[in-house]
Amino acid sequence: MSPGTRQPGELLAAAAAGDRAALARLLSIIERGGAPAAAVAKLAYGAAPPYTVGITGAPGAGKSTLTNALIREVRTGWPAAEDGGAGAQHDPVDQVAVLAVDPSSPFSGGAILGDRIRMQDHATDPSVFIRSMATRGHLGGLALAVPDAVRVMGAAGLPLVIVETVGVGQMEVDVASAADTTVVVVTPGWGDSMQANKAGLLEVANVFVINKADRPGVREARRDLEQMLELSAPAAWRPPVLTTTATDGEGVRALWQAVARHRAHLVRSGLLASRRRERLGEELRRVLTARLLQRLDDLAAGERFGAAVDGVTSGTLDPYEAADGLLSDLIG
Amino acid sequence: MSPGTRQPGELLAAAAAGDRAALARLLSIIERGGAPAAAVAKLAYGAAPPYTVGITGAPGAGKSTLTNALIREVRTGWPAAEDGGAGAQHDPVDQVAVLAVDPSSPFSGGAILGDRIRMQDHATDPSVFIRSMATRGHLGGLALAVPDAVRVMGAAGLPLVIVETVGVGQMEVDVASAADTTVVVVTPGWGDSMQANKAGLLEVANVFVINKADRPGVREARRDLEQMLELSAPAAWRPPVLTTTATDGEGVRALWQAVARHRAHLVRSGLLASRRRERLGEELRRVLTARLLQRLDDLAAGERFGAAVDGVTSGTLDPYEAADGLLSDLIG
Repeated sequence: MSPGTRQPGELLAAAAAGDRAALARLLSIIERGGAPAAAVAKLAYGAAPPYTVGITGAPGAGKSTLTNALIREVRTGWPAAEDGGAGAQHDPVDQVAVLAVDPSSPFSGGAILGDRIRMQDHATDPSVFIRSMATRGHLGGLALAVPDAVRVMGAAGLPLVIVETVGVGQMEVDVASAADTTVVVVTPGWGDSMQANKAGLLEVANVFVINKADRPGVREARRDLEQMLELSAPAAWRPPVLTTTATDGEGVRALWQAVARHRAHLVRSGLLASRRRERLGEELRRVLTARLLQRLDDLAAGERFGAAVDGVTSGTLDPYEAADGLLSDLIG
Repeated sequence: MSPGTRQPGELLAAAAAGDRAALARLLSIIERGGAPAAAVAKLAYGAAPPYTVGITGAPGAGKSTLTNALIREVRTGWPAAEDGGAGAQHDPVDQVAVLAVDPSSPFSGGAILGDRIRMQDHATDPSVFIRSMATRGHLGGLALAVPDAVRVMGAAGLPLVIVETVGVGQMEVDVASAADTTVVVVTPGWGDSMQANKAGLLEVANVFVINKADRPGVREARRDLEQMLELSAPAAWRPPVLTTTATDGEGVRALWQAVARHRAHLVRSGLLASRRRERLGEELRRVLTARLLQRLDDLAAGERFGAAVDGVTSGTLDPYEAADGLLSDLIG
C-alpha cells in the first residue's frame, strides 16, 4: 500500500518501526492543519515526549551550521554527571530529529533551502531525521503545529528533537516555548541589531551561544550578554554564555554539555514536569482560541451578522450592543 | 465641576459646545479601553461621521511636517469642482482634528513627542485639535480605539479628522482602514527599504505622495510606484502619485486637491457609504473577537480549565478533546 492511502494509525505504527516516509507523511498532515492534523496529534498523546532542544537566533547567526555540528556531539550520547549530565555514565541518543521551522515569511524560502544543504553532512545517516516546516497565513498555525510535530516524532520513537527557528519575535517565543532547553545564538556585533529584542531573548534563553567566535567583537558581545544577565532577576538557573565556531566544531562539545546540565537541572528541580504541564496549558489555550475564532468566522458569514451590520450602519445599534446580541446567540 | 467628575454624556455635550478639555478627556477614556470606552463610543453613534483622511508611511518620511502643511490647506476649505472638489464652490472646513497614532512600540515615544513639536504651528489655533494616542499591549487595542476616537471627534462637531500612523504593518492597515481617504507617504529611495511592503501599500493607498522631493531619487521613486500601479488590477480609482516638499509647502495644495478628488469619487460612486458599512462590519468583528478572547481569559483562569490541563498532562485527554469539552461548556 502506498503511504497516501494508509490511515494515521497505520502510518504511526510504520513510523515507530523506522519507516521515515511514513513519519514524513504524518508531519505533512500536521503541517496542513485542520481536522486531519488533530486526528494525528491525538494518536501521539500518551507516548513519552522527546527531549526538545530549541535553537533560535537572527538570520545569519549560523544556526543550521551549529545544529549540524551539534548533531555529531548528540550522537555521542548524553554526557555522564562529571560532564554536566544527569547519570553515572553516558546515556545513548540513538536517533536525532531536527525540525527546522520557517516562520510565515515569504522571503525566507531560499534561506531554508540553503539551511538544508548545510545540514547534508547527515543526509545519508539513517539515525538523523531532518524536516523543515512552514505554515503560512494560518492564525497560530506554527504555534499549534510545532508541539504536535514534536509529539509525533516522539511517538515515532525519536528521543531527541532539535527545533530550529529564526528570530525572537512573538511567533518564535511561542515556538521556543515548545522546547525543554532553548539555545539562543548570537554573533559578535549582535548588540547593535538585536538591542530591541533583549527582553525577548532573556525570556526564552536557557543557554547563550556567541557563534562565529573567530570574528572580532566576541568580548563585547559577551560583556553585553553578561550585563543583561546581571540586570535580570536572580534565578536557580543562570544561562551560561558560551562561544562556538560552528564551521570547525570549536566549542560545540561544551554547548552539548551545557544543554545536558540544563536538562539535569530541570529533572532534579522538578521543573521539567511542571514546565511541560504549563506548556500543555498554553497549547490548550491556543487550540481553544483557534476554535473560537473559527466559530467567529462562521458567525460573520451568516445572516445574523449581516443584520447586525445593517443595524449598526443605520444607527439603530452600536457595535457593542450588536456584539452582545451576537455573543448571546453564540454563547447563551 | 471638574472634567474628572462629569459623566460621558455631559462631557460630550461640553465637547460639542467647543470645550476641548472635555473632548480630550473623552479621548483618554477611549484610549484606556474597556467598559467606560464602550460607554463613550455608544454615545457617539448616530452622529454624522467626520470625513477621515489617513496619512501613513515609514518613520522619517515627514508625515508630521506634511500633516502640519496640509492643515493650512484644509483650512481653505474643500476645493470647488474645478479643483477636484465635489461642489460648485469651496465648502468650508471650520475645524480640523489630527489624531496621531503611536503603534504599540516602546521605542517611538520620542518620535511622537518630536512630531507634536513639528505640528506646533497650529498649537494656539483653536480650530485645530491635535491629539496623540497610544494603546499598548492590548489585543486589537488601537484597531478598536481609533474608529471610536474618530467617531467621538465627529460627535463633538469636528468635520474632518486626519489620522496619522507610522508604517504599513497589519496594525497600520487596520488603522488606515478607519480612513475614507488614505495617503501613503514615501521618500526618494523608499524602494530599497519598503520593497517587502508593496502589497500592503497598494492595499491601503488612495493617494501616493513622494515627500522630500528636493532630494535625489524622485524620478526613480515615481517610476517604482507607477510600475507597481501598472501591475495591479485596473480599478475605477487609480491612486495618483504626487510629489511634495512639506518643509516649504511645495505640492501640498495639489495633495489637498487629490484628497478632494478622491472624496468626490467616493461620493459619486456610492463607495463612501458602502465602504463605511464594510468598516462597521470589520469593527463589529473586532469587538466580537475581543469579547470572545475575554471569555477565554476568564475560562483559562477557572477550575475546569485546570482540570482539563491535568487531564492532558496525565494523558487521559488530548488538547483537542479537552478544547471540545471546554467549548461546549462555554458555547453549548
